[in-house]
Amino acid sequence: MKAEIIGVGTELLLGQIANTNAQYLSEQLAEIGVNVYFHTVVGDNPKRLTDAIQQAETRADLLIFTGGLGPTKDDLTKEILAGHLNCGLDTDEDAWKKIKDYFKKTGRKMTANNEKQAHVIKGAKVLPNDQGMAPGMFLKKGTHFYMLLPGPPHEMKPMFRNYGRQAVMDQLEKVDRIESRVLRFFQIGEAEIAEKLSDIIDTQTNPTVAPLAGDGEVTIRLTARSNSKETAAALLDEVEKKIQKRVGEYFYGYEDTSLMAELLKELESRQLTIAAAESLTGGLFQSEMTSVVGVSTMLLGGIVCYSNDAKIKLCKVKPETLEHEGAVSEQCALELAENVRKELGADIGISFTGAAGPDSLEGHPAGTVWIGMSFKDGESKAVLVKLAGTRNGNRRRSVKMGCYYLLKELEKK
Amino acid sequence: MKAEIIGVGTELLLGQIANTNAQYLSEQLAEIGVNVYFHTVVGDNPKRLTDAIQQAETRADLLIFTGGLGPTKDDLTKEILAGHLNCGLDTDEDAWKKIKDYFKKTGRKMTANNEKQAHVIKGAKVLPNDQGMAPGMFLKKGTHFYMLLPGPPHEMKPMFRNYGRQAVMDQLEKVDRIESRVLRFFQIGEAEIAEKLSDIIDTQTNPTVAPLAGDGEVTIRLTARSNSKETAAALLDEVEKKIQKRVGEYFYGYEDTSLMAELLKELESRQLTIAAAESLTGGLFQSEMTSVVGVSTMLLGGIVCYSNDAKIKLCKVKPETLEHEGAVSEQCALELAENVRKELGADIGISFTGAAGPDSLEGHPAGTVWIGMSFKDGESKAVLVKLAGTRNGNRRRSVKMGCYYLLKELEKK
Repeated sequence: MKAEIIGVGTELLLGQIANTNAQYLSEQLAEIGVNVYFHTVVGDNPKRLTDAIQQAETRADLLIFTGGLGPTKDDLTKEILAGHLNCGLDTDEDAWKKIKDYFKKTGRKMTANNEKQAHVIKGAKVLPNDQGMAPGMFLKKGTHFYMLLPGPPHEMKPMFRNYGRQAVMDQLEKVDRIESRVLRFFQIGEAEIAEKLSDIIDTQTNPTVAPLAGDGEVTIRLTARSNSKETAAALLDEVEKKIQKRVGEYFYGYEDTSLMAELLKELESRQLTIAAAESLTGGLFQSEMTSVVGVSTMLLGGIVCYSNDAKIKLCKVKPETLEHEGAVSEQCALELAENVRKELGADIGISFTGAAGPDSLEGHPAGTVWIGMSFKDGESKAVLVKLAGTRNGNRRRSVKMGCYYLLKELEKK
Repeated sequence: MKAEIIGVGTELLLGQIANTNAQYLSEQLAEIGVNVYFHTVVGDNPKRLTDAIQQAETRADLLIFTGGLGPTKDDLTKEILAGHLNCGLDTDEDAWKKIKDYFKKTGRKMTANNEKQAHVIKGAKVLPNDQGMAPGMFLKKGTHFYMLLPGPPHEMKPMFRNYGRQAVMDQLEKVDRIESRVLRFFQIGEAEIAEKLSDIIDTQTNPTVAPLAGDGEVTIRLTARSNSKETAAALLDEVEKKIQKRVGEYFYGYEDTSLMAELLKELESRQLTIAAAESLTGGLFQSEMTSVVGVSTMLLGGIVCYSNDAKIKLCKVKPETLEHEGAVSEQCALELAENVRKELGADIGISFTGAAGPDSLEGHPAGTVWIGMSFKDGESKAVLVKLAGTRNGNRRRSVKMGCYYLLKELEKK
């Protein structure tokens, strides 16, 4: 099966946004063995959109559209495609109910064009939108398949992942089992991991081994093709074993996990509670923790002590400590971690204090960060990390480092 | 002049990278008044690349290629285009000297295919590559213009900015000034704003009026064409005035600003300090504030009181309040805002307490959020907002709502 991805929207042609949807879909389709030969981007223009559809039909079996499903007049993907295919439009009752419920719940005013969002092409399978209002569609007409997805990536991606991908796979005559596995590493660079695994990366063809760097982590994606799930899994196991033998000390988890998710798993399984005191991270550690459902049994809370005054008032750091050692110091990190733990009666206290940047702080260069950890058994510890990113890069990296070092400490207990 | 941007590279079709080059070039071309009607991405395949060229020639005057100028066998953009146009290739002496110098300087071994990088299409104007080895090209043949740019964005962007852009402008009969302005709105949906402005959106051709929704906000981009900057600005002023008259109450800022940035501007100009108490937002408000450089004179700090215990211990919320009114209540929001303000001696206290979701809390549906505000002059206030997003959508939206309502209150003072 050959696919073409058609991005619809004048905002793409004006350069207001990048077509990241095409990238995501290409990656997904490659995984299930569908070849993508072209991406096209076309504006909100009936004639040119029709031309793009006709063109794509000459060179692809599956046309995937992103964008143009919104409520306004310039959203016209489904209307144009329905016209081109000589199909009408129906109101999808589930989507329409969802839209009405939304306006009822938020008390906002619904306008006439909101109903347009619930329209779907007659005969299409509806792909639910769990993150927004516009439903997606999948249909076969003649020898072609058509899929319509919303433009906003946070709506499009879960829709494809949860519904669209399977709809495509159901149409593949012979699906080579494509199994992939992502291994996640921390505290090792991409160049170093690539060097350590160079012979494996160069000679492996099934599974393929693809390292990728991003946001302070390195992932390795293993992709195996086989006629059965079991054989594919065995192929993955075999190459993973080789990789773990060489760089396993940096490995921390599989697939979409994160250091924060691994830390929460660990806290949950040990039934431990945590409290945090954050200076340079300004609440980011706790905010990331709170983004996970069900964290309330673990995270008791904490303080944000961006100013020295807050360190003293909210977390009882000794004024002498700040005067003699400074805020960017081991002693300050230890007091913060210990005091916040005791104040909230938590099992673990963690603290972050340092220079986020761009400027140095108390003579310490930007990126100098102390992470303090305090445990109920009386042990406490502070780790110095030196980062070289932007202000917000350093803040994000500090949070990851905090999760990483805390996991390391918990392993020992 | 109509342009089509053709990205060449199988890595784009596999989703290994996003086509950010097309975004950059689209933005640049819009600025000089060149219309971009299509983006195309095609792989490193002679037949399909030739097809894409023929297709683009039917609908554009200027074809801009990115990618495929490298030294390896699968880099074939200039070879295919030269063949298609019946032109030969020449070695560009400047580029060839640069390549030889590089290998001499680094002591690395030059391979035969390195000379290929210095080849240019006969008769083309060479666009120097200040960041890499492959030169760019610009040529006219028949009624079409062709520009070839390297794929790596850090080479492509300076080449276009410094040489390519002027080469295109030299071919424009009359260069229009393109001026655009972005207006940002909050607390109004895309459908509602489109309805209120439908006649303006439909009838305006210069400036054009384009609404776009994203993450709880709506932006409107106005784009004017004129022969002078002043006339373009006057056209923008005129239509903005009409828009502000109808939906100005929802307007909060221009261009790339955010509600948080606007709030910080306001706090800075009034020399006010702030402290925060965050339950459902879990530190997100303070973390977003801390992401801005120089915030330390405004944000004193605050607490994260995800658990009721933390509300009592860290922010002295009365146990009776939690018992009788609950955590999701006006009274709790007021106590949190007032107590955190007093504790830190800040001018303003803000608090967030509610049900982030997905589950309801204390009988309140997910998305029920109280935002408390307390001011030094003794005034305090809590606002109830009802959100209908995901857990993290509700948390992000709460932060925006907090900024919004605080800005509203400050306006009155």
